[in-house]
Amino acid sequence: MALVLKRINDKVAFEVTNTTGQSIRFDANPEAGGEGLGIRPMEGLASSVAACASIDILLILKKKRIELSNYEVDIQTERKDATPAPFTRIHLVFTIGKEDPIEQVQKAVALGVEKYCSVSASLDPTISITHEVVQK
Amino acid sequence: MALVLKRINDKVAFEVTNTTGQSIRFDANPEAGGEGLGIRPMEGLASSVAACASIDILLILKKKRIELSNYEVDIQTERKDATPAPFTRIHLVFTIGKEDPIEQVQKAVALGVEKYCSVSASLDPTISITHEVVQK
Repeated sequence: MALVLKRINDKVAFEVTNTTGQSIRFDANPEAGGEGLGIRPMEGLASSVAACASIDILLILKKKRIELSNYEVDIQTERKDATPAPFTRIHLVFTIGKEDPIEQVQKAVALGVEKYCSVSASLDPTISITHEVVQK
Repeated sequence: MALVLKRINDKVAFEVTNTTGQSIRFDANPEAGGEGLGIRPMEGLASSVAACASIDILLILKKKRIELSNYEVDIQTERKDATPAPFTRIHLVFTIGKEDPIEQVQKAVALGVEKYCSVSASLDPTISITHEVVQK
């Protein structure tokens, strides 16, 4: 992995690019000079947890030949009221289709979030990472 | 903070969108079905560390009325050889201009990375986060 961060304005917005050309744009909140040019770094962190777990979850289900009719993840977070303000909790709500096999998905979600995901394994173990599966 | 992750293909590529419409795209490595549609989740995590620190660093320097002629960050990482494979080290190389005040930047970098950044404060404290400043 090799990544390069560059400024994209004269304030605090950045673009980070990887070796194969994919990129991600970050910006601060408006109070800190942000102009809405990208996501906030803490949003990037929480998003990476959900994406990492989702890759593992869908691969686990694929091995069992399960294709979901719907798959969406709501990411809810709580932070410490301090500086710095790390996460205290990350809660992932997985929404799948009404006909999708919820018990098998729950098992895959638990494995994906708790066991296989390298992003959550990189987080402070005091952060509570929880999950639930709902059908819609 | 409220984020929603949605699939953008029938494999393992996702887009996460925040409440103000900014988004980030993720994809897996090619061996896991990735099609190069986004960055990898672990790249998202490392990028978030660098972006978070950079916001604080540039704001600290701005308060001292220091504008840099160049600012770029190379993000280098090491991971555990296991499943999951969390980071063991994140090394940030800050490149600034030849005429930029390196000592003041080094102080701001140390504060930004070690003290103020909420992303690094959310990481497992066993991960070594190191930094250096070079002039070019």
